[in-house]
Amino acid sequence: MLNQGRLRVSVVGGSGYAGGELLRILLGHPRVQVQQVTSNRQAGQPVTLSHPNLRGLTSLTFVRAEEIGDCDLLFLALPNGESMQSMEMWMTRAERVIDLGADFRLRSAEEWTAWYGTEHAAPHLLPHFTYGVPEISADQIRNARHVAGPGCEAIVSILCLYPLVRRGILKPDPIIIDAKMGSSQAGHAPTDASHHPERAGAVRSYKPTGHRHAAEIQQVFRNVGLPSSVCISATAVEMVRGVLVTIHGFAHQDLTEQELWRAFRSEYSGKPFVRIVKQTQGLYRYPEPKILQGTNYCEIGFEKERRSDRVVIIGAIDNLVKGTSGNGVQCMNLMCGFPETMGLEFPGLHPV
Amino acid sequence: MLNQGRLRVSVVGGSGYAGGELLRILLGHPRVQVQQVTSNRQAGQPVTLSHPNLRGLTSLTFVRAEEIGDCDLLFLALPNGESMQSMEMWMTRAERVIDLGADFRLRSAEEWTAWYGTEHAAPHLLPHFTYGVPEISADQIRNARHVAGPGCEAIVSILCLYPLVRRGILKPDPIIIDAKMGSSQAGHAPTDASHHPERAGAVRSYKPTGHRHAAEIQQVFRNVGLPSSVCISATAVEMVRGVLVTIHGFAHQDLTEQELWRAFRSEYSGKPFVRIVKQTQGLYRYPEPKILQGTNYCEIGFEKERRSDRVVIIGAIDNLVKGTSGNGVQCMNLMCGFPETMGLEFPGLHPV
Amino acid sequence: MLNQGRLRVSVVGGSGYAGGELLRILLGHPRVQVQQVTSNRQAGQPVTLSHPNLRGLTSLTFVRAEEIGDCDLLFLALPNGESMQSMEMWMTRAERVIDLGADFRLRSAEEWTAWYGTEHAAPHLLPHFTYGVPEISADQIRNARHVAGPGCEAIVSILCLYPLVRRGILKPDPIIIDAKMGSSQAGHAPTDASHHPERAGAVRSYKPTGHRHAAEIQQVFRNVGLPSSVCISATAVEMVRGVLVTIHGFAHQDLTEQELWRAFRSEYSGKPFVRIVKQTQGLYRYPEPKILQGTNYCEIGFEKERRSDRVVIIGAIDNLVKGTSGNGVQCMNLMCGFPETMGLEFPGLHPV
Amino acid sequence: MLNQGRLRVSVVGGSGYAGGELLRILLGHPRVQVQQVTSNRQAGQPVTLSHPNLRGLTSLTFVRAEEIGDCDLLFLALPNGESMQSMEMWMTRAERVIDLGADFRLRSAEEWTAWYGTEHAAPHLLPHFTYGVPEISADQIRNARHVAGPGCEAIVSILCLYPLVRRGILKPDPIIIDAKMGSSQAGHAPTDASHHPERAGAVRSYKPTGHRHAAEIQQVFRNVGLPSSVCISATAVEMVRGVLVTIHGFAHQDLTEQELWRAFRSEYSGKPFVRIVKQTQGLYRYPEPKILQGTNYCEIGFEKERRSDRVVIIGAIDNLVKGTSGNGVQCMNLMCGFPETMGLEFPGLHPV
Repeated sequence: MLNQGRLRVSVVGGSGYAGGELLRILLGHPRVQVQQVTSNRQAGQPVTLSHPNLRGLTSLTFVRAEEIGDCDLLFLALPNGESMQSMEMWMTRAERVIDLGADFRLRSAEEWTAWYGTEHAAPHLLPHFTYGVPEISADQIRNARHVAGPGCEAIVSILCLYPLVRRGILKPDPIIIDAKMGSSQAGHAPTDASHHPERAGAVRSYKPTGHRHAAEIQQVFRNVGLPSSVCISATAVEMVRGVLVTIHGFAHQDLTEQELWRAFRSEYSGKPFVRIVKQTQGLYRYPEPKILQGTNYCEIGFEKERRSDRVVIIGAIDNLVKGTSGNGVQCMNLMCGFPETMGLEFPGLHPV
Repeated sequence: MLNQGRLRVSVVGGSGYAGGELLRILLGHPRVQVQQVTSNRQAGQPVTLSHPNLRGLTSLTFVRAEEIGDCDLLFLALPNGESMQSMEMWMTRAERVIDLGADFRLRSAEEWTAWYGTEHAAPHLLPHFTYGVPEISADQIRNARHVAGPGCEAIVSILCLYPLVRRGILKPDPIIIDAKMGSSQAGHAPTDASHHPERAGAVRSYKPTGHRHAAEIQQVFRNVGLPSSVCISATAVEMVRGVLVTIHGFAHQDLTEQELWRAFRSEYSGKPFVRIVKQTQGLYRYPEPKILQGTNYCEIGFEKERRSDRVVIIGAIDNLVKGTSGNGVQCMNLMCGFPETMGLEFPGLHPV
Repeated sequence: MLNQGRLRVSVVGGSGYAGGELLRILLGHPRVQVQQVTSNRQAGQPVTLSHPNLRGLTSLTFVRAEEIGDCDLLFLALPNGESMQSMEMWMTRAERVIDLGADFRLRSAEEWTAWYGTEHAAPHLLPHFTYGVPEISADQIRNARHVAGPGCEAIVSILCLYPLVRRGILKPDPIIIDAKMGSSQAGHAPTDASHHPERAGAVRSYKPTGHRHAAEIQQVFRNVGLPSSVCISATAVEMVRGVLVTIHGFAHQDLTEQELWRAFRSEYSGKPFVRIVKQTQGLYRYPEPKILQGTNYCEIGFEKERRSDRVVIIGAIDNLVKGTSGNGVQCMNLMCGFPETMGLEFPGLHPV
Repeated sequence: MLNQGRLRVSVVGGSGYAGGELLRILLGHPRVQVQQVTSNRQAGQPVTLSHPNLRGLTSLTFVRAEEIGDCDLLFLALPNGESMQSMEMWMTRAERVIDLGADFRLRSAEEWTAWYGTEHAAPHLLPHFTYGVPEISADQIRNARHVAGPGCEAIVSILCLYPLVRRGILKPDPIIIDAKMGSSQAGHAPTDASHHPERAGAVRSYKPTGHRHAAEIQQVFRNVGLPSSVCISATAVEMVRGVLVTIHGFAHQDLTEQELWRAFRSEYSGKPFVRIVKQTQGLYRYPEPKILQGTNYCEIGFEKERRSDRVVIIGAIDNLVKGTSGNGVQCMNLMCGFPETMGLEFPGLHPV
């Protein structure tokens, strides 16, 4: 059943929500053949039992992780702390590995321990991984064998801040990120917190301080010599998919919105998945996750407070696409020489 | 801590949603003192951990079921099949018992087995229970020691149908009840089906045929000599609280809406919790569970199809109040000689 | 700007929700070039102001209806009663016309008047239109110049009922359709009823009797010699997109679910957009509009009541795709000799 | 129909959402008689047409504003900029006036102009009004004849910040308020932004900078000699009622959470409507507007970032109760010598 011209891709951890979106995108990708999909819990079941939107589109069944054979590229979509247990083994299965989880995002094992509270199981492999933000590291990703996909709050915040911080427009400290999160971000396992009568209509602070994704953002800025102190407060709101970040920062000097415009445009010109949103009319004048569901876009907007040096940057993504799976496929496209947008063309729905 | 003039009431099974609403109502009831509340799972914890809306209003902690002492009236709010295991014992604890569960709703153990698929554990006690619909059995309830609270789809359907069927306006067969249900109806334990990303925005058929509450409705009509064949199809929709039933029936003869009006008004005149809703303008022209949240009202509306003998009756309640706890307190008020509406005065919110 | 190998398509009434979905699909269709889009209200504005999901994908601006030039195929997405005013003119603009509105669905001007309460403005054109249900009239549509797209409750109900009624499995009378509708169905103009604080969480009966789409369904059955009496009761529920119909009918004779299976499978085998859903496990055992958002699928499920001749058929679609625009494009594909599924491949999202 | 022992209260602007909640509370208040309710648009209609939850509870009909007669206390619930046009006249109608709108919140006409962009129509009356936060100005309110009710974002933010800023725990600058708002806050008139298909599931930045309620908060701090620079960014989220504020500030010195506890407890001890929420378990560990619907509570929580001087304070209210009407009734109770909680005892629902 091998398909000559296609990349053979397997997915480890395919029964979760990120795994499902990855499958949807890969099954529609003209240069990919999905070879195997694992789920230890669901082994032997059709993947459509977990992902009913794929009914009629695939006859794949889940296999156990240990059944994974050789392939061209392997995606890992596992809970935090799992992929590092067996990464050495996964690296023997495929020349290219993209890990969508947290295990290989930080460069230093000490940082891992400080933020995640456990020892890192494979510190020697950390330097092998490239942190995968295609809009700011396309060349490294093109040449990478191993990519770590960013956290969803991290990638949208980095895309919002990077052009301003590295141009010295925004002070690197303090930067406050207020993240509004949809329910799919907490995964597919039911909990007391995800129980519909409790979660429906909730506007629930769940991580006011100490959010781990701050570590990734700070690492990006340290890499360009700009140590910053980033704080994230996260609130769960009533949506299934999506992240909206409202970022509060302070400008270095008297600043016009024109300069903000210029910074974003020069940074992201020609980047297919960044949309600068700054309209003067209409309902969608600022970025909004609602219309990004299913898409790989990151929308970015901004506003400067009058008579103050405060700047507000607003960013929106779909946590399951640009926040994980879609961004992973975008990295795959770069690594494999495919067009960057291939398989990621869905424009999103309105209204929805 | 005994309060002289007040009825000492205890609640068995107080950590669930119906138990929580019962507590909210009883704590505000001027003639009641809540004595004990049980939860085997949460014993030792403050009741406000399960019911955060009661924070600051009560310092009760849950006790285990076996710790229940004597009281004046005992409410049971247990999963189906549990209260019948120990009903004989509960009856020794209090002179009056109101069971909000299903176990004592049907008069016959055979019926129980046919619909619930198990043997009834206490068939000899079935005749001791009065089926508690205050609007049609107030006198029996006043004299009852033991009351079985109806199922939520059942009580709203009975209130919609009873005036028409017993007056011979509606044929007793076929009657089709299409019930739209909120998520709190499935209880407080998280499941795959209640997981927010799956349940949010769902319009999900979950019991197209064979719904058990049909048995209760048919029993009511058999009791007045009108064997009817009632079918219920239930669909879960996006709301936390509430039931809306759309009931499709057929008129015996040429019928005017005027006659429907008359039947409902003569049946329910002076009944404080039934609201006939038949407006010609405004958004709330038909019954609507949205504005009934927290209230003990049952709203009833109706419409006759032109050039056809089809009649549509529409009924709405809050499943946790008129559908369980509030109706139980209404029964308690009748049994104890309190004003029927005492403790149940909350008018509901708009918008909400 | 003309694109040699592509069909030149224009859209009259492109600022509404159906128009927006039509544009989304047509812009991604490999054999179509969108030539002009009209909106009298928004003329001169970019189409992305109305349809923010298309930002970056098109630079089209709305033109006024009278500016429409010649094209190969014209879609009309206008409010009821508008397209018949100028249909004669539209027919001169394009050889093929697909009207997504109600004006040309009924074969008889008398029927129109009976259900819509106005005189039909172009009764002589009614015979020119083919009622567009590709799954039951593919050949007529292939040969048609003018197609009338069905109403959304109508098409899903017809697909659920047609195989059973024409095989004599289901009695044609009484058939009761209980339709649950999302908010996008009422269009893009804000009203008191669509105001979020009133509409959110609503489970609102809005058309218990006299629903116009019943006329279309009855016409389909009359065409095959089976006069039926179909009643629709419609309830607005909390979703933006989607229709779920719960259809209650009665079997002609002792019937097994096996026979229902056979009828549906033989009718819809090879039909790419009908999915028979009858699972014994998983959350999505019955059809569900939630996962169909953005897709052209119609899901159909069914269940027979035990010890009764009642049959429940359940159908789900996205009202803006299979219920209007997507079905229109499917008709276009047939009329123009394109593959039936072209441009309609989006599989839908989960969770969402 | 005058009721001897009761305060005669009239409401100007009674058809909006705040007016409706005011009526619900006043109709249940044992010491109040609602005398007249105005709505120019709905004059002659029963108030239950606008407020369907009050069906069966009142037979009042709306009158025009000019028909308002003498009464003991007058509530004004009008759009911004309206009450100042006729305040002199309203003051002749009742000895006590409570204005729930914005017109008399700021002490200075210049401030009004700076934030609202218009001339103030009655600058000479501004000094007559007391800014009504009962938890910090109970004595002034008791002696006041004229009270201006705070804005909803303002009151919850003030209650969160006041104990910390005036004790010198929190630096008065920068303070960043990220407010999540429900849809009822925008009033009862349908707009493009409130149209359900657009507003449902939205997480929509709508006032990232320049929010007017900042002026009220700064005025409170200036009054105690602590000029502060407060910024508010507001985001609309999917709920009908409620405000959640996440407030980001910086501590003056090394601070423990213990000290935050102490500040809040000493400030609000004995204040019946402030609930400090700081639980270590359960779903409702932080303040949450969901369970406050219909109640007059303000919940306050807090957390200090480890290894940083950032403090996050979280506050929640129902915008229509503690954010407007309920707080107004609380002020009335103080002004009239009634128990502070009278009429405001509803504890809220769970789940909801």
